[in-house]
Amino acid sequence: MSVNTFGRVFRFTTWGESHGPALGAVVDGCPPGLAISEAAIQPFLDARKPGQSKFTTQRREPDEVRILSGVFEGQDGIQRTTGTPISLMIENTDQRSKDYSEVAKAYRPGHADYAYDAKYGFRDYRGGGRSSARETAARVAAGGVARLVIPEVSITAYVSEIGGDAIDRAAMDFAEIGNNPFFCPDAAAAQRWEKLVDDARLAGSSLGAVVECVASGVPAGWGAPVYGKLDSDLAAAMMGINAVKGVEIGDGFGAARLTGEQNADPMRPGTDGPAFEANHAGGIAGGISTGQPVVVRVAFKPTSSILTPVPTIDRAGNAAEIVTKGRHDPCVGIRGAPVVEAMMALVLADHKLLHRAQCG
Amino acid sequence: MSVNTFGRVFRFTTWGESHGPALGAVVDGCPPGLAISEAAIQPFLDARKPGQSKFTTQRREPDEVRILSGVFEGQDGIQRTTGTPISLMIENTDQRSKDYSEVAKAYRPGHADYAYDAKYGFRDYRGGGRSSARETAARVAAGGVARLVIPEVSITAYVSEIGGDAIDRAAMDFAEIGNNPFFCPDAAAAQRWEKLVDDARLAGSSLGAVVECVASGVPAGWGAPVYGKLDSDLAAAMMGINAVKGVEIGDGFGAARLTGEQNADPMRPGTDGPAFEANHAGGIAGGISTGQPVVVRVAFKPTSSILTPVPTIDRAGNAAEIVTKGRHDPCVGIRGAPVVEAMMALVLADHKLLHRAQCG
Amino acid sequence: MSVNTFGRVFRFTTWGESHGPALGAVVDGCPPGLAISEAAIQPFLDARKPGQSKFTTQRREPDEVRILSGVFEGQDGIQRTTGTPISLMIENTDQRSKDYSEVAKAYRPGHADYAYDAKYGFRDYRGGGRSSARETAARVAAGGVARLVIPEVSITAYVSEIGGDAIDRAAMDFAEIGNNPFFCPDAAAAQRWEKLVDDARLAGSSLGAVVECVASGVPAGWGAPVYGKLDSDLAAAMMGINAVKGVEIGDGFGAARLTGEQNADPMRPGTDGPAFEANHAGGIAGGISTGQPVVVRVAFKPTSSILTPVPTIDRAGNAAEIVTKGRHDPCVGIRGAPVVEAMMALVLADHKLLHRAQCG
Amino acid sequence: MSVNTFGRVFRFTTWGESHGPALGAVVDGCPPGLAISEAAIQPFLDARKPGQSKFTTQRREPDEVRILSGVFEGQDGIQRTTGTPISLMIENTDQRSKDYSEVAKAYRPGHADYAYDAKYGFRDYRGGGRSSARETAARVAAGGVARLVIPEVSITAYVSEIGGDAIDRAAMDFAEIGNNPFFCPDAAAAQRWEKLVDDARLAGSSLGAVVECVASGVPAGWGAPVYGKLDSDLAAAMMGINAVKGVEIGDGFGAARLTGEQNADPMRPGTDGPAFEANHAGGIAGGISTGQPVVVRVAFKPTSSILTPVPTIDRAGNAAEIVTKGRHDPCVGIRGAPVVEAMMALVLADHKLLHRAQCG
Repeated sequence: MSVNTFGRVFRFTTWGESHGPALGAVVDGCPPGLAISEAAIQPFLDARKPGQSKFTTQRREPDEVRILSGVFEGQDGIQRTTGTPISLMIENTDQRSKDYSEVAKAYRPGHADYAYDAKYGFRDYRGGGRSSARETAARVAAGGVARLVIPEVSITAYVSEIGGDAIDRAAMDFAEIGNNPFFCPDAAAAQRWEKLVDDARLAGSSLGAVVECVASGVPAGWGAPVYGKLDSDLAAAMMGINAVKGVEIGDGFGAARLTGEQNADPMRPGTDGPAFEANHAGGIAGGISTGQPVVVRVAFKPTSSILTPVPTIDRAGNAAEIVTKGRHDPCVGIRGAPVVEAMMALVLADHKLLHRAQCG
Repeated sequence: MSVNTFGRVFRFTTWGESHGPALGAVVDGCPPGLAISEAAIQPFLDARKPGQSKFTTQRREPDEVRILSGVFEGQDGIQRTTGTPISLMIENTDQRSKDYSEVAKAYRPGHADYAYDAKYGFRDYRGGGRSSARETAARVAAGGVARLVIPEVSITAYVSEIGGDAIDRAAMDFAEIGNNPFFCPDAAAAQRWEKLVDDARLAGSSLGAVVECVASGVPAGWGAPVYGKLDSDLAAAMMGINAVKGVEIGDGFGAARLTGEQNADPMRPGTDGPAFEANHAGGIAGGISTGQPVVVRVAFKPTSSILTPVPTIDRAGNAAEIVTKGRHDPCVGIRGAPVVEAMMALVLADHKLLHRAQCG
Repeated sequence: MSVNTFGRVFRFTTWGESHGPALGAVVDGCPPGLAISEAAIQPFLDARKPGQSKFTTQRREPDEVRILSGVFEGQDGIQRTTGTPISLMIENTDQRSKDYSEVAKAYRPGHADYAYDAKYGFRDYRGGGRSSARETAARVAAGGVARLVIPEVSITAYVSEIGGDAIDRAAMDFAEIGNNPFFCPDAAAAQRWEKLVDDARLAGSSLGAVVECVASGVPAGWGAPVYGKLDSDLAAAMMGINAVKGVEIGDGFGAARLTGEQNADPMRPGTDGPAFEANHAGGIAGGISTGQPVVVRVAFKPTSSILTPVPTIDRAGNAAEIVTKGRHDPCVGIRGAPVVEAMMALVLADHKLLHRAQCG
Repeated sequence: MSVNTFGRVFRFTTWGESHGPALGAVVDGCPPGLAISEAAIQPFLDARKPGQSKFTTQRREPDEVRILSGVFEGQDGIQRTTGTPISLMIENTDQRSKDYSEVAKAYRPGHADYAYDAKYGFRDYRGGGRSSARETAARVAAGGVARLVIPEVSITAYVSEIGGDAIDRAAMDFAEIGNNPFFCPDAAAAQRWEKLVDDARLAGSSLGAVVECVASGVPAGWGAPVYGKLDSDLAAAMMGINAVKGVEIGDGFGAARLTGEQNADPMRPGTDGPAFEANHAGGIAGGISTGQPVVVRVAFKPTSSILTPVPTIDRAGNAAEIVTKGRHDPCVGIRGAPVVEAMMALVLADHKLLHRAQCG
C-alpha cells in the first residue's frame, strides 16, 4: 500500500512540497454523477488558508484549487463526477525567496529534519518540504470531494482548548464557530484566546491545542469489525495530520477512569432506531457506527518553530544552535480544524462505499 | 484493502469467532530463514491467556498455537521461516455450553451487538462472535512472528493506570512487571490494584485502564511522511484493539498544554547519532522514527459486561433490560498489555521491511 | 499488497504447502446472509481432486474442506455467512514418505526450485512446497464461496486442446464436459485424448493444454477503466495459476490478425440491452463488461516432471542430471479447468462488489 | 485497492482524460537519491508521441512532461528524487474542437462507450475520455521513473507482427528498431509493413499487431510464489493497456503444444549462476525470475475506429449506424511498443523493491 495514499475504495493520493510549483490530490473511486465544481471545494480551502488573521502564519497563498480531470458537463449544463480519478491541483505562489542555508545545515529539533535525513539521506529543506503543513491543503481539497459522497452527514470541527485553556462546554454554541478566528464554539473562550495566542506570537513562542469533531447523520452500520474499524481508520487519519500527538473516540482517555456503569450507553426505543441516553462510545461500537454522532478529539502539539534558540546538531553531527525564523503559526491547532473535518469526511465516504460493497 | 488484514508488506490476516472451532492468523511477507517454533510464540499467548488469576476472566483456554505452514526444518535441524505464508491456528476448547437466548434477543449496550445487526442484519451472538476479545489471541500469535523480524527492538508494555489510580513514575521498575497479575511496573500500585480490581469483580462492575508501551532499539528512519506515518499506523493498530478509545504518542494530549519551548526535544552530539535531552515526541517526528524509544499510550474503557441491569431494546425495537452474565474480565485493560505489545511489534516489523523496500 | 492475497474488496488469502499438515484459504469481505455449507463447496474440490482417473496424478487426497469461521446457523436452521472472514481448511493426508534427498540437492529444470533458492536462500523441497499445484485446492475452495456471491452468473470451463490436438468447435456440447475425464465438450476429441494422454503417461512424458472459460450472466458495467480492468484482473488471476504461460480475452492473439472490420462487434437493439452480432471482445470493452459472455482462454505448459533425465546443476553449482520421479499429472491442464473456473468466480465476485461500492 | 493505481510498493496513479486540460501520474515509493530530470523522461514520451509518421494518428501533442514534486537539487547541482511522491503532468494541447454530438448519442461498437454508460450512467465522450489511449502517456512518463530504479535491467520492445505478417526471427536485429516507424527489428518486414499499414490507413481500416518485450539483466529472485507472481503482475500490466487482448510469457500458447521434453530449459554450470540451454519459460519459474531474459508477448487488436459504417444502437436503444471519424492510428499496436516497455519497467521496479523488502 502506498504511503501517500489514504483510503480503501474511496481513496486519495496527495503530492507536493512546500516550495515546489504546486501540490495536489488525486481522488479515486468517487461515485459518478455527483454535481461538482471548484466553487464547491474552494470554501473548505479558504477556511484553512493561512494569512487570514494575525493568529496564523503570514504566508499568503490564494490556495485556488483547479480540477484537472474526472468531471464532465452533462447535457443539463451541470458539471458532474464521471467516476474516473479527480485530479485537484493547487499552485504554490508565495514561495518567498528565503535563505534556507541554516536549515540546510542544522536540524530543527521537533521538526522532521533529522528523521528525513536519517531515512532518505537527503531532504528538500525549503519550508519543510513534504513535511510542511501545506500538504494538508491537498487533504482539504480531497475532503471537499468526499463531502459530496456523504450528503447525509454533517461535520463540524472546533477548537476546544488552546494552551490548556478549555472552552466551557455549557456555553458551547456551534453558531459561534465562524465568528472568531479560532473556530471556537465558546465566545468567552475565543476572547481569552486572542490575548493568549497573541502573547505567544509576540514572544516567538507557540501553543498546543485540542480540536474536536462531530459527525452527525452517520447511519448505523458503517465500519468493520477488526482492522478496518471505523475508529481505527479515524485514528490513523487524525494521527497522520501534522503536529497531532493524540486521538480519542468518544470519552477517550476519560473512559479509562470510569466504571462500566458510568460508561454505559443505555438504549431505549426511539423513533428511528434506538434512542441512546449517552454517547460515551462516540458513536462507534465494535468498530461500527451506532447511528449516534461520531465524536473524535485530536491533540495538536505546539509547533517546534519558535524564536528561542534550541541546542541541536548539524548534518556533520556537531553541536549547533538553531532559531526557526520565518512565518509560522503560533498555534497550528487552529488551522487544524478544517483539516480534521476533511479527514473525517474522507474516512466516512470510504466507509460508506465499503459498507455498500459488502452489504449492498 | 481487506478489513481483516493489517499491514503493508509484512501483513497478517486474522479469522475466527469466540465460539467457533478455532481462530487463527495468516502472516504474509515474513522474511525467510528466521528460526521459528511454536515454543517461541507460545509465551506471548500465555501472557495474554485468561484464567490465570482472579483478576481476569475465568474462561480457561490453553490457547495452544499450531504452525500449519510457511516453515521448514533445514539441514541444521532448525525450523525456519521459508518466506511463504505462516498459518497459525489456536483451537477454541472452553466454549461452555451456555444459554445465549437472551443475548440473541436483546442488545447489550456498549457491546457491538446492535452495530453488527445494523450492518449485517445478522450476527453470531455466542460470546460476542467476531467482536470477542478472543480475536486478540490471533494478533498475539502473529506478533510473536513479528518479533523475529525485529530482533534489534525490545518492546515492553505495562498498565500505568486502573480506574483512575495511576502508578508513581518515580517508582517505576520494569523488573516488577512480571511480579504481579497486572503487568504493573510499580509494586505499590500493584498492591492497591488488587483490592480495587477485586472489589469491582465482586460488585459485578468493571474498570478502565491505561496501557503504555515502549519500544527501544528502533533505529532512526522507519516510517513515512504522510499517510503511512509510523504514528499513524500505530494509532490504527492500537485503536483497533477491543475496548480501546484513545491513543497517544509521546506526550499526547499533554503536549497540547505545553508551549513550544516546553515541548522541545533538544539534540546534542551523541555517541551513535544525536543524544536527545527529552522525548516529548515519543520517538517519532514527521511520521519517521528518530532513534529514541517509541512511546505509545492506550486507553481501555471498562468492559460493558456488568451485572447491573441496563436499559436496552430487543431486536424488534421494544424496551428491554439486560444483565451480562458470563465469565468476564473486571478490567480488560490488564490483558490488553500483551496485545499492545503484539501490535507494536507488528507495526514495527512492517515498517522495517517497508523502509528496506524504498531505501535499501 | 500481500503476495498471497488476491482481490480488492472480496479478497482471499491462501496458505499451505504440499507436504505440510494442511492448506487453506481465508475469504474476506464476503457479503452476509448467504446460505453456505461445506457440502456446497465440496463438489468443486471433488472436480479438481487428483487420483480420479489414470490421466491425473495418483496422489489420493480426500480434499475435504472444513469451514472454521465466518458462518452461523440462524433461527431458520440454515447456516449463513456472517460477513466476517471465512476460514477454509483442507488437511493433507497422502504425504507419502518419500526420499526427497535428490530434489533437495539438485534443481529440477522448469520447476521453481532454482528460483526459490535464488530468492529465499532456502526452500521446502518436499513435493514442490508452496509451488506445488496443491495450493490450487485452496483457490477452488475460495471459489466455491465466490460463486455464492454471483448467483446470476454461470461459469463453465473446459479443455479445448491437448498437445496441439484441438476440439472441433462445431461439435461442442457443454453437456459432454462431465462425460469424460478431460472436461472436454467434444466427445470425439475426448476419445482421441484418451490415447494421447495415456501414451504420454506411459512414456513418462507430459503434454500442454488449453483451457477455455465462459461466464454467462455477467451484467454490463462490472470492471473499471484503467488498472482495475476486468480483463486485467482476469489476466493476473489466470497467469497466477501453476503452469500457465498465456491468457487471452475473446479472440486474443487471433484479434491481432484481424482488421477492424473483421473484429467489429456490431450492436442492434435487443430485448434487454443491446444484441451483439459477435463477441470478438470476449464480453469486455475498455475494461468493463458489456453484458455478453466473458470468455477467457488459458495456456498450460506441459509439466516439467518427466522421466527423461534432464541436465541441471546442484545447489553447489555443479553439473548434475535429474529425473523427476513421483506421482505427476501427464497433463496438468486437465485439472486446471476447475481452477480456472474458480479464479473466474473470484474475480467476478470482487468486481460485482467493487462496482456496487462505487456505483451503488 | 484503487483502480487507477498500479503496483505494490513502487506504485503509480494516473489521471486524466483525452480532452481535459492535462493528464498525469503520481509515482509513489520511489527510492531517494536517484538523479532525475524532465529531459531523462521525455525521450520515452517522444517515442510514444503521435503524429510522427503517417502510420500513426495525426493528433499532434508535444507531450511535454513536467515534474511537479518529489525532486530536489542537492548541493552537487544534480536534481534527485527525494523519496516523496513524484507528480508528473502532461498538458493536453491539441484538443481540436470537434463535433462530438454523434458519439454522444450513439455507441461506437468495440469501443468502451456502451460499457462506460452501463457502469456510470454517464460518460465524457470527447475523444474517448478516460478510455482514450492518451492515458498511456502518463504510464510512459511513470515508466521513465521506474527505469531509474532498475539500472541493471535493459528493456526492449518491438513489433513482431502486423495484420498477421510476422517478422523473420532469423533476420532480427535490435539495431533496426529505431530505423523505421514500426519499432520493427526486421528491416524487410518493416518495408512490407509500410504498404500494409498505409493501405489500411487509406482504406479507413485498421490492423492488429503483436508486440514483444525482452528485459535483460533481471537477476534471479524477483517475484513471488502465488498471487504476486512476476508473470501474474506482468499479465495484469499488459492486459490493462488499451486494445490488448492477449498476453504470453516465454513460449506462451506455443508451450501448450509442446511435450515436457521439448519445453525443458536444461541448466548447466555457468559463470554467474546457471547457464540455461533455452528459455521456453520466458525467464520466470514459479512466479520468480530465473536470471534469464524476461520475455512477454502482447496482442493488440485492430482499433475499432474505422471508416466503414457499423450497425449500433443509440443511448435510447434504437438502431443506428456509426462511422468513427477523426484522427486515429491505423495500427494502435505500433505505438503500443513504448507503452509495453513502460509497463515492463514499472512491474520490475516494483518487484525489485518488494524483493528487497522481504529478503533484504
